[in-house]
Amino acid sequence: MKMIKAAIIGYGNIGRYVLEALEACGDIECVGVVRRNADEAQPIELGGYEVVDHVTKLSQKPDVAILATPTRSVEKFALECLENGINTVDSFDIHTKIWDLHETLDKAAKEHGRVSIISAGWDPGSDSVVRTMMQACAPKGLTYTNFGPGMSMGHTVAVKAVEGVKEALSMTIPLGTSIHRRMVYIELKEGYDFNEVAAKIKADAYFVNDETHVIQVDSVADVLDMGHGVNLTRKGVSGKTPNQLFEFNMKINNPALTGQVLVAVARASMKQAPGAYTMIEIPVIDLLEGDKENIVRHLV
Amino acid sequence: MKMIKAAIIGYGNIGRYVLEALEACGDIECVGVVRRNADEAQPIELGGYEVVDHVTKLSQKPDVAILATPTRSVEKFALECLENGINTVDSFDIHTKIWDLHETLDKAAKEHGRVSIISAGWDPGSDSVVRTMMQACAPKGLTYTNFGPGMSMGHTVAVKAVEGVKEALSMTIPLGTSIHRRMVYIELKEGYDFNEVAAKIKADAYFVNDETHVIQVDSVADVLDMGHGVNLTRKGVSGKTPNQLFEFNMKINNPALTGQVLVAVARASMKQAPGAYTMIEIPVIDLLEGDKENIVRHLV
Repeated sequence: MKMIKAAIIGYGNIGRYVLEALEACGDIECVGVVRRNADEAQPIELGGYEVVDHVTKLSQKPDVAILATPTRSVEKFALECLENGINTVDSFDIHTKIWDLHETLDKAAKEHGRVSIISAGWDPGSDSVVRTMMQACAPKGLTYTNFGPGMSMGHTVAVKAVEGVKEALSMTIPLGTSIHRRMVYIELKEGYDFNEVAAKIKADAYFVNDETHVIQVDSVADVLDMGHGVNLTRKGVSGKTPNQLFEFNMKINNPALTGQVLVAVARASMKQAPGAYTMIEIPVIDLLEGDKENIVRHLV
Repeated sequence: MKMIKAAIIGYGNIGRYVLEALEACGDIECVGVVRRNADEAQPIELGGYEVVDHVTKLSQKPDVAILATPTRSVEKFALECLENGINTVDSFDIHTKIWDLHETLDKAAKEHGRVSIISAGWDPGSDSVVRTMMQACAPKGLTYTNFGPGMSMGHTVAVKAVEGVKEALSMTIPLGTSIHRRMVYIELKEGYDFNEVAAKIKADAYFVNDETHVIQVDSVADVLDMGHGVNLTRKGVSGKTPNQLFEFNMKINNPALTGQVLVAVARASMKQAPGAYTMIEIPVIDLLEGDKENIVRHLV
């Protein structure tokens, strides 16, 4: 069997876990990592890999580029890869802008006869598949997505941007019915007043609508943990029958799951017609390694 | 928008709930019911519908036939419909024979340029999609499917076939790690010894490997309930990260959910290329009513 060739674009937290997921699977090989500081000393686990500063500089052309970049630069890197005839997958996570990205990358992907799978992590991503399935099972009703307890990357970045904050961690605590409490742990910069900084955080757009508690700690590093979770519930109507109850829970290492899902959709990108897709638009069987008959026999 | 035309083949428990799901949705209309006793008096809810004894006798040709027949006659009816240029969907539930049906109907569907979606209920069906998604999220690990508490149709039929049993109900009780207890409630025929009948039931192939309790009741009808449930768990490895925990639970009216899923796949059958599919082979978005942009905006 011919291996699928994948490149990793960006090598932060997610990129590292993407590499682990690639090393753990049997049908995709990593042909290199693309990062800005390609000429500097690289982490030990990249020893056997080519590291370059642009995807076109890789000595083996990848079939698919796995974007492990910040969400805001996904579009730029995806367009660049598609134009160079490379499939892309990403975990773009700004829910309100997913459709716009879908439109932009769909056009580029079709123009270059390539595939782009967007917003493929756990939410958006695998959770989206579960939400869609629950909706199909009970078309009328309410779905609630309850996140955490776990670290919110977006909220943490927002806190770090507040003047006087040295280090920060924003934890998302689920209160049910999609309502969340924000527990914010900060180290203060010298010369700043805790109460003033805390008030600024609570007034920030990220926090102003949620119950928010700010707590000063000596060391954010000492309370940081990559575990996260979700509780998805739907109570709805199948046909004319009410009170159909569905629930999905997970407790996971956040970047490890995102990395794994990105590798699964990289595989799936090889089986779709040219265009852009979210995860709900591709058959789940395409996410798995192995042949169709075997998967159907074991999982259906 | 043009309505999808669906016919219901078979009108037992599932057929009734399929009709309710069709009546509750906005993009599919029921163009008739096919059943053996079409010339007899029909239930009141079929008043406005054409009832015939063969699918070719319907005055409007359906786009898709929803098979609500016993599992063992699915293949015969599906082939008949496909040969007449009609898509089919079914909830064939003998796990070990799904691939064979897939092969047979795939050939017929392609020959006639039609689509057949098989084994589409909740297990096999929506559970299969969740199992596949969990496997994609953590490729190494163990998944357990725990059914119930709820009535097992197959086991109940097996009990009814035992000599001396007048009426029966076999309940499936989940004990975890895919192990189940069978609680069998029976009415005894006159002149039979309870202990002898109970021993025969426990020796039946359906029960011999499970912890089985047989209990005599005055009226099976008085303890019968159509509620069912499932608890699906997976603990596995994402990339190289262990202890990733996933869980899916539902508590549902069994035939109502089966009927609803059948209607969702009837819709999805209109969007696939000719051939046969299980639910894990079709994008979940195709199960839903409405346009793609709207669904992506709300559910991804």
